[in-house]
Amino acid sequence: MSRPAHRRPEYHKINKDLFVLTYGALVAQLCKDYEKDEDVNKYLDKIPHTFLHHRGYGIGTRLVEDFLARSCVRRCHSYSEIIDIIAQVAFKMYLGITPSVTCNNSSRTEFSLILDKNPLVEFVEELPAGRSSLCYCNLLSGIIRGALEMVHLAADVTFLQDTLKGDRVTEIGITFLKKLDEKKYRRKK
Amino acid sequence: MSRPAHRRPEYHKINKDLFVLTYGALVAQLCKDYEKDEDVNKYLDKIPHTFLHHRGYGIGTRLVEDFLARSCVRRCHSYSEIIDIIAQVAFKMYLGITPSVTCNNSSRTEFSLILDKNPLVEFVEELPAGRSSLCYCNLLSGIIRGALEMVHLAADVTFLQDTLKGDRVTEIGITFLKKLDEKKYRRKK
Repeated sequence: MSRPAHRRPEYHKINKDLFVLTYGALVAQLCKDYEKDEDVNKYLDKIPHTFLHHRGYGIGTRLVEDFLARSCVRRCHSYSEIIDIIAQVAFKMYLGITPSVTCNNSSRTEFSLILDKNPLVEFVEELPAGRSSLCYCNLLSGIIRGALEMVHLAADVTFLQDTLKGDRVTEIGITFLKKLDEKKYRRKK
Repeated sequence: MSRPAHRRPEYHKINKDLFVLTYGALVAQLCKDYEKDEDVNKYLDKIPHTFLHHRGYGIGTRLVEDFLARSCVRRCHSYSEIIDIIAQVAFKMYLGITPSVTCNNSSRTEFSLILDKNPLVEFVEELPAGRSSLCYCNLLSGIIRGALEMVHLAADVTFLQDTLKGDRVTEIGITFLKKLDEKKYRRKK
């Protein structure tokens, strides 16, 4: 998809701690509002989607479009390539980190992104009391799934390991739900 | 205050849009939870303070300490100097912008930071319906006041103009509440 040059957003950075603070406040508020961890997880996951369709060209769209414009994800020919771009371009661009990638099945549709360090939880010592099923970073799942949806790829995105739950690393599992059909997958120019 | 080198936090950046998205979701959730705009404003304003005292060395502290470590604010001899550093160092560091500064009284205790562009509201077209008293960006007031408190300076920090309320610019008013006492103001080394 081509976009007029003047509409292409600038690539701005802000201090990470400001984001970590705001994200922490958001999770804390949602924990106050929703009794069940599942509801908090769902809410976090759907944030990018909510904003994606909010008043046309919203922030969700921009987040994803900006990534698509800067990556070559639309020209990928395999799920492995797509996952590599998510790890090396998107994570670097948005969070300043590059997760490692593993492929978890022989048909190469199931992958894991392994984050040795997760900036979102840098100051979170543990999950809030009684919140053992909380996926603290579920916003990330929503963003990854949202980005893949925009290029017509359906995927399950879930946290398989979480340092806040005692795991050594954070592992985000991405399972593509259909065989890659290159024609369908490419968006019209 | 000196801090051991290994404890000094690294200076990381993340994508601004991710922050704008998260901040928008937080404000939306607070608007759901609190009927009165004043309560939303208060909540946003107190976030840095809440996290400042959360489990010792929290994110709020780090935000402020990081700024103090990088600026020379502790060596300032006048409110004007302090305001200039907030505008030129802190805003640049955290939000990537540099507001202009005006002094609003002859005793040089009242100042304004004028933001021609406010990254937090970049994708916000208007205040939510029925929320005409909402100070959407009140987190910023809380951060500025929190930073000043940490160097023992009491100040009122309020939004005097807001583009979301039809003003041409965003104006943050900062009024110092006491005469500057250099001895008191300097923290013990």
